[in-house]
Amino acid sequence: MDENLAHAEEAGAARRGRGAGGGAAARRAARSGGGPGKTLTYIKRQIPLYEVLNEEGLALIEANADTVLEEVGIEFRDDAEALELWRQAGADVRGERVHFPKGLCRELLKTAPSVFTQHARNPERSVQIGGDATVFAPVYGPPFVRDLDGNRRYATIEDFRNFVKLAYMAPSIHHSGGTVCEPVDVPVNKRHLDMVFSHMKFSDKPFMGSVTAPERAEDTVAMAKILFGEKFVDDNTVIINLINANSPMVFDETMLGAAKVYARANQATIITPFILAGAMSPVTVAGTLTQVLAEVLAGASFTQLVRPGAPVLFGTFASSISMQSGAPTFGTPEPTLVSYGAGQLARRLGLPFRTGGSLCASKVPDAQAAYESANTLNSTVLAGTNFVLHAAGWLEGGLASCYEKFMMDVDQLGMQQKFAAGVDLSENGQAMDAIREVGPGSHYLGCSHTQANFQTAFYRSSIADNNSYEQWLAEGEKTAPQRANELARRWLDTYEAPYLDPGLEDGLNDFMAKKKESMPNAFT
Amino acid sequence: MDENLAHAEEAGAARRGRGAGGGAAARRAARSGGGPGKTLTYIKRQIPLYEVLNEEGLALIEANADTVLEEVGIEFRDDAEALELWRQAGADVRGERVHFPKGLCRELLKTAPSVFTQHARNPERSVQIGGDATVFAPVYGPPFVRDLDGNRRYATIEDFRNFVKLAYMAPSIHHSGGTVCEPVDVPVNKRHLDMVFSHMKFSDKPFMGSVTAPERAEDTVAMAKILFGEKFVDDNTVIINLINANSPMVFDETMLGAAKVYARANQATIITPFILAGAMSPVTVAGTLTQVLAEVLAGASFTQLVRPGAPVLFGTFASSISMQSGAPTFGTPEPTLVSYGAGQLARRLGLPFRTGGSLCASKVPDAQAAYESANTLNSTVLAGTNFVLHAAGWLEGGLASCYEKFMMDVDQLGMQQKFAAGVDLSENGQAMDAIREVGPGSHYLGCSHTQANFQTAFYRSSIADNNSYEQWLAEGEKTAPQRANELARRWLDTYEAPYLDPGLEDGLNDFMAKKKESMPNAFT
Repeated sequence: MDENLAHAEEAGAARRGRGAGGGAAARRAARSGGGPGKTLTYIKRQIPLYEVLNEEGLALIEANADTVLEEVGIEFRDDAEALELWRQAGADVRGERVHFPKGLCRELLKTAPSVFTQHARNPERSVQIGGDATVFAPVYGPPFVRDLDGNRRYATIEDFRNFVKLAYMAPSIHHSGGTVCEPVDVPVNKRHLDMVFSHMKFSDKPFMGSVTAPERAEDTVAMAKILFGEKFVDDNTVIINLINANSPMVFDETMLGAAKVYARANQATIITPFILAGAMSPVTVAGTLTQVLAEVLAGASFTQLVRPGAPVLFGTFASSISMQSGAPTFGTPEPTLVSYGAGQLARRLGLPFRTGGSLCASKVPDAQAAYESANTLNSTVLAGTNFVLHAAGWLEGGLASCYEKFMMDVDQLGMQQKFAAGVDLSENGQAMDAIREVGPGSHYLGCSHTQANFQTAFYRSSIADNNSYEQWLAEGEKTAPQRANELARRWLDTYEAPYLDPGLEDGLNDFMAKKKESMPNAFT
Repeated sequence: MDENLAHAEEAGAARRGRGAGGGAAARRAARSGGGPGKTLTYIKRQIPLYEVLNEEGLALIEANADTVLEEVGIEFRDDAEALELWRQAGADVRGERVHFPKGLCRELLKTAPSVFTQHARNPERSVQIGGDATVFAPVYGPPFVRDLDGNRRYATIEDFRNFVKLAYMAPSIHHSGGTVCEPVDVPVNKRHLDMVFSHMKFSDKPFMGSVTAPERAEDTVAMAKILFGEKFVDDNTVIINLINANSPMVFDETMLGAAKVYARANQATIITPFILAGAMSPVTVAGTLTQVLAEVLAGASFTQLVRPGAPVLFGTFASSISMQSGAPTFGTPEPTLVSYGAGQLARRLGLPFRTGGSLCASKVPDAQAAYESANTLNSTVLAGTNFVLHAAGWLEGGLASCYEKFMMDVDQLGMQQKFAAGVDLSENGQAMDAIREVGPGSHYLGCSHTQANFQTAFYRSSIADNNSYEQWLAEGEKTAPQRANELARRWLDTYEAPYLDPGLEDGLNDFMAKKKESMPNAFT
């Protein structure tokens, strides 16, 4: 599909409500080649998965994880309620250390859905989480940005809104994400309100909630109820939330608090061991997978203790540390093997799977960033990952959200989406008429089959320069980041917010104003 | 494995002969962190393959290819001998168009080996072609180089020698390749002699022969007989040669002439449809695969007519053209699907497989180059490719050999080699002792398992900067190509030629001198 041109009219028609990105400015941009093109639905994978472990290896790791759960145990820190829930469930609780009888966690996880829908306020943007679906979401968490003027500086709420807008416009991003950058110019105890509101206001794609304190999770749920209606939120999943384990083998008060809020509200959690192998897990792939599985089994089954049936994902954040500097590395072989293996373990457990993204350690959007990101993204997709955080914009080991990298990654995501559609084996796909028509020694450029198919035949990159060297010279010898910079500026110039009912917007603003008045600003 | 440090001593000991790259200068470089490290043997894959087509799809494409071979046919141009061979084999020859009765090509290919050894003058560098082996060889064919001073200019014999030297030193390059760049400062009718000699003199890895004219192929065989001995060359494969189809569905006089010379001498050929889909093949993946299979069946079985048992590879060079500019694109989804599918077809045919590499369209070693190269390389490895041409140094759609890109690609190849070793499930790999020792809330940095394994646990990049932002700033804000530039210079400064028997070298020089005297220089 032509990702750049001529689809704005269809996009406008397909979108619900007035002014939904299909307006006059977007059409102008599309005609001049600068528009983002039609939003794609989430990926429904039509290609096989790639798996690195055989049955014997998987069974070994599962048995080892059971041993870790029983013998070593997992700590649930500073949360008496959690420990009490585990006691009642039949676990052996010694202090804050929970030891799990063999099979307990798996038994509890039988109530967790293997596939569910996360609803967006625009029903056409709702996504399937699990099964053959892959959903791409932006980078999460960086305190810094690398901006369009080449500065590396602390992120602001304006940057936050910009990344929400770009993700809204990007055809191959299916999800608005969460902390697309950390808006450090807003008080730390209030910024979750502005972040959640930005996702609701500037996008109509599904989004993530705050997890930095239980009361902020409560605020997220309250705002979702204003936007979607209380009954709808009780009955459906409209927020997905990142709950990191404090590896090795610890869940802390903050994460447990947020997990409880969301699980009780029937909202989704992603239980993610955050692993820099060599520091937070053993230096080996099999050892890391064992610990990851043990931590996910404990954390995910905990959500089922809180509310049986609450959606929960098997998450894995895999990196290795440099054994010289201690710094994390990305796009290297060992985390790739971990991701593939974790995907297999998640499927055997019947849970949707989250890993990977477009991860890199580079400080600039150069070749290192691209090699590392492509290595990560290729394996993320082939591993059958259902929810892909950090799919665009990640730079510097996650310390910076980069506008140029965001645009380049978006282009790569479009390629992955086309790849995941697999091989068309229809009569048109077989193209025997074309081969017969053209014959030896001729070319296919003008044949009827080519004419009928060329507009959608090949993925068309929004970033790559495929012209001749001479033409590239004549056009100013631009690198990929320079072209990405121009594209980001064009998108932001032509952005139009999706329609949001003014009554709902007022309700959200009232809620936020009251909350903000209720406490003094805090910056640490 | 530590790819950079401390292995030069072992490398020296492992190499045959005096001065074989393990000399004093290399040891100095290794101690200062600039040495290339120990040469790796070719990859023996311990990971599964990735396959995009199911049995039904494969059978459909095979049936369609048989139909193309029978109904449309393949042209063997300007080669009466080839047509006569086909007539005798039972094909229906009409003019230069050969129509193949169903099953004829597959029957002929039963004599072709599915696995063979290409011998190097240093037996430790001999490579397995086929089966679970993957062999990485450098870029092939560019008339230009992007040099270490940032100039894009015509390539010279000095560049040629430099790339041979770098490939010799690169631990993750298993093969010296062929036309690593086109030395345009040497007469076109004589440069094959200098190219073949450079591979023989400046490397001890296996290499490729000239295919630009039958007599140049004869010269290559003659020089190989000087180097290896006549009997050894008669009995063994010491040269591998790139025979491109003139797609669609044509083999021309030049390629047929070279193929005949090499097959008769029991040397290996790689029959490669060179496909820019949309121009040389249909715009669809299935249609392209059908044509690729038909062309390989015709070309590869032709080598068996010439000499039953001569080694022959199933080659595929897959690109799509931009339907706007007509320029080739790389790293995009459609060629990736073609490569995966072609790998499956090759295995069903029982032939070793060649495709992919580190391909890109970018004019500079920027993020575009890296994304495209990584996309291509990841699928090349997962497709089970046995011989990977263009694995390092390819830039600008193959128009330029780039020093910086070569070094960056070499690093990526090392990562792929580590990945292909798969997951260690030994007791040490399981790391249960480490998990028990560390327990919840601690870290693995100092535990005994980490201490015992850290030196080899993680791939260590020669290019990536994983340091903090502040340290990266303090070290000059270098990009990946800048670090690659410094590394290339260090390697070339410390290069030492492998030992070559002076008698053999004299023999090669005598042969070349006589050949050069026997004809006037030609430059077109």
